[in-house]
Amino acid sequence: MESQRVPVELDPKLALELLGRAGFGRVAFLSDGVPTIRPLNHVVLDGRIIIYTRHTSALGRAIRHQADSRVTYQADEIEPRTRLGWSVLVTGTATDISRDPHAEQLALQVQSWMKHPLDMVIAIEPQAVTGLRLTTGS
Amino acid sequence: MESQRVPVELDPKLALELLGRAGFGRVAFLSDGVPTIRPLNHVVLDGRIIIYTRHTSALGRAIRHQADSRVTYQADEIEPRTRLGWSVLVTGTATDISRDPHAEQLALQVQSWMKHPLDMVIAIEPQAVTGLRLTTGS
Repeated sequence: MESQRVPVELDPKLALELLGRAGFGRVAFLSDGVPTIRPLNHVVLDGRIIIYTRHTSALGRAIRHQADSRVTYQADEIEPRTRLGWSVLVTGTATDISRDPHAEQLALQVQSWMKHPLDMVIAIEPQAVTGLRLTTGS
Repeated sequence: MESQRVPVELDPKLALELLGRAGFGRVAFLSDGVPTIRPLNHVVLDGRIIIYTRHTSALGRAIRHQADSRVTYQADEIEPRTRLGWSVLVTGTATDISRDPHAEQLALQVQSWMKHPLDMVIAIEPQAVTGLRLTTGS
């Protein structure tokens, strides 16, 4: 008999800290009117989530198409065997900051796992941060 | 020096098979006009993704509000140290099937990790399945 888990709400500050340590998450955005997900790498700097993509990607096109796009960023670390871990959700607005003076410097801190050239730096300004830790409930 | 990975496209049939074996993923949907993500458990049965939630959840409300909602379902298994693994994306339409004769039977097959009562069975009918395997490229 496998055990079920009790979710316990995390403090938003701790949630953002866990997200920052993860380095890998998923962004949900609107692509031609359809809610879409892309997995990617990120870094949390000065309270913003910085991601690095290509102008020609579905995400890049969506953000170029609409300034200050509403997006959700999600990361989790849940061990499938023990079913213990955490999940963090951030809703916010995404902006193309590729032309900002510090864009290149920020992009360098995103440790992309992918071996393809990236050229678009996006900053997500959080509006709401929520997090859950899965516990045994005891 | 950490290694970067080369994504190799997966056959859609294999991609859906990997998704089925995972049992845990994330759904992206529109919640009050904002693209949102929720992590949850699933099972793949007869080519459909079956998920089990509550009528009162953000996902439940979104699907009740709009029949045949366009959604994206995503799962991945990427080992952070080796950066090897796979990611699968399914876009499709989500329907509340809670009143179908077989709904309860389908719901029982979704192994929810969460210890709270669920009452809404949703089927996602895939329209497009894409998958990537992260390889060393050699």
